[in-house]
Amino acid sequence: MISTRAQRLKPSYIREILQATQQPEMISFAGGLPDASLFPMTQLGLATTQLADDRAAFQYGVSAGLEPLRDWIKQHHHCSENNDVLITTGSQQALDLIARTYLNPGDTVLVESPSYLGALQVFQLAEAQIILIPQTDSGIDTALLAKLIDEHQPKLFYAVPDFHNPTGSRWPAETRQQVARILSHSHTRLIEDAPYAELNYDGEWLPSVTSLCSGPHFFLSSFSKTVTPGVRIGYVVCDLESHKALLRVKQATDLHSSLPMQQLVLNTLSQTTISQHLPAIRAAYANKRDRLVNALQDTFGDKVRFTVPSGGMFLWVVFHHCDTEILAKRGLEEGVAIVPGKAFCPNAEQFGDAARLNFTHATAEQITTGVARLYRAYQASRI
Amino acid sequence: MISTRAQRLKPSYIREILQATQQPEMISFAGGLPDASLFPMTQLGLATTQLADDRAAFQYGVSAGLEPLRDWIKQHHHCSENNDVLITTGSQQALDLIARTYLNPGDTVLVESPSYLGALQVFQLAEAQIILIPQTDSGIDTALLAKLIDEHQPKLFYAVPDFHNPTGSRWPAETRQQVARILSHSHTRLIEDAPYAELNYDGEWLPSVTSLCSGPHFFLSSFSKTVTPGVRIGYVVCDLESHKALLRVKQATDLHSSLPMQQLVLNTLSQTTISQHLPAIRAAYANKRDRLVNALQDTFGDKVRFTVPSGGMFLWVVFHHCDTEILAKRGLEEGVAIVPGKAFCPNAEQFGDAARLNFTHATAEQITTGVARLYRAYQASRI
Repeated sequence: MISTRAQRLKPSYIREILQATQQPEMISFAGGLPDASLFPMTQLGLATTQLADDRAAFQYGVSAGLEPLRDWIKQHHHCSENNDVLITTGSQQALDLIARTYLNPGDTVLVESPSYLGALQVFQLAEAQIILIPQTDSGIDTALLAKLIDEHQPKLFYAVPDFHNPTGSRWPAETRQQVARILSHSHTRLIEDAPYAELNYDGEWLPSVTSLCSGPHFFLSSFSKTVTPGVRIGYVVCDLESHKALLRVKQATDLHSSLPMQQLVLNTLSQTTISQHLPAIRAAYANKRDRLVNALQDTFGDKVRFTVPSGGMFLWVVFHHCDTEILAKRGLEEGVAIVPGKAFCPNAEQFGDAARLNFTHATAEQITTGVARLYRAYQASRI
Repeated sequence: MISTRAQRLKPSYIREILQATQQPEMISFAGGLPDASLFPMTQLGLATTQLADDRAAFQYGVSAGLEPLRDWIKQHHHCSENNDVLITTGSQQALDLIARTYLNPGDTVLVESPSYLGALQVFQLAEAQIILIPQTDSGIDTALLAKLIDEHQPKLFYAVPDFHNPTGSRWPAETRQQVARILSHSHTRLIEDAPYAELNYDGEWLPSVTSLCSGPHFFLSSFSKTVTPGVRIGYVVCDLESHKALLRVKQATDLHSSLPMQQLVLNTLSQTTISQHLPAIRAAYANKRDRLVNALQDTFGDKVRFTVPSGGMFLWVVFHHCDTEILAKRGLEEGVAIVPGKAFCPNAEQFGDAARLNFTHATAEQITTGVARLYRAYQASRI
């Protein structure tokens, strides 16, 4: 009875362990949650109060989204006249809309390996053929990219060039230039997913890849990391023709995203004090990252390998002589949750010794305790 | 480059004339908008203020939706233990999730004719084969329903039994019983879309059709009409197995619907004074309906035919010797917007002399003026 596309969809590991992670004693490195204690409640409080008598914000809105918020986004990203913004229910919906608007079953999509779980789910649901390009220390191997594009002519190339989920890695300037050049000679459109770009702790500032691309492309971001995730306000920036095509599908999907939430985000961004928020969370998350890095080094020594990311929310850890699926299971018994590496691979065949550890959600104390618990689980599950 | 499914999608007439209807002097009978002056701003204001320091409401939530809101809905609809609730971004998304979860391209769906535009768009996007069952004075012809189900074995039957969009018609008790009986002997699942059920002005109270059905089915509703539409909070009630299947697709689609908006709806419904809201809007909308009915009768006399609906938001009007596509165009020139009947038919082949007139959005004065304008347009466009 279930459709072919729904059958292709693999359940999310994170949702499967949700009940376990919601137990009060559990320390979770598993989700991708920001730290709620850092939410800009002063600004959100004022923004919310402004909503209280804003009758217009509670009426139906237009499918493209609230115009002043779209204008804010255009200005923020220095959009040209040839681009437009579509507000979506989180950037997850932007990705889903692109897949539905451009992919027929069997069409080829190129994604980095490992990749964001939610993107893999979208492409499974679109019944796409997923081609993988492995991540390297410099982001991706651009010679291999050129070869794969030439061979498979993928319609879309989905990438997270800034502080990747799950690996935390980042494309250097040279890689960005090369990727843009390669794409300009192909019919492959880049989907640049940039939810973590603003969570830059000690990296240099680099241009977005799409800003270097000459052909049509999609730039995705959201306010989940910079304002709050619960509001589910994300967006896609693209050329006018693509915008029109996405807009039509958006309308059939949910008419429009929550209008009070779009107004709330705009009310929040309009306050001058909000400019202090990003520097504050960057400093706090950098501290938490360092705490996790130090705890892992102190506790595991040379039994773990990882590259310290200069931003984002995740540490990608390779454990010596370890099956991380077993480690994750034992971890739950010890009271700590992680996501095993295989969850980030469409065929669950790779990254058997790796795991993703989120460092933004747990408190500093929990990070220390969580790593100690993980070490007990590791000792019990070494192979 | 656009996918086959996106190519199947027809643009919405309402969106096509959006720019015209947003001009300040335009009187619109075209949209399906509630009257913003009737929004429960006192309750919404308090509910919004409660959000201002509700940190948890701004974090990521679970895909199924806020549990206390789901509990409220279960209690409201007297759900059994065998049913569960999935919160969606408006009931439009519930419909889209069902289509994506259950329909393969070419699968058959049965819909009433005329039908809700947004449903037709969802089924076009699902590349479904759409079979039509004409509406009658008693809702639908149940003998024909049995025949069509037998012949085409549709996977889904989409219906709006209460105060239909666009016709305003309603299935009597006997039709509901018969439909439930016919469906119990088939593999066809009913999608009962009930956004207008609470907007009952002078009709008797009737059971939902799904409450009479024995097999699996979907009941859709939302808070768009009873609280406010901008929040985009709708839901589907269904059996546990279907709930699980829909939930998985929902997660890939947008992770979850806005959590502050779910909390806001719950905060609003939790206030005792909200019980006065529905009676108030029912009385106001009944007045507006009567105003439109009287204005049409006074102005057009026997040049129009319609059945006065006992609820909902729409009047379905047949104009004597008239092409309503021309009437709608001339109407825009005169400063009044309507939706021509053909917009509610997948092949735009029927209802060429009918139009849908919304009576909830315009003020009483605008209704009178709008009908006068429409009459001028009618005189200029009679065939």
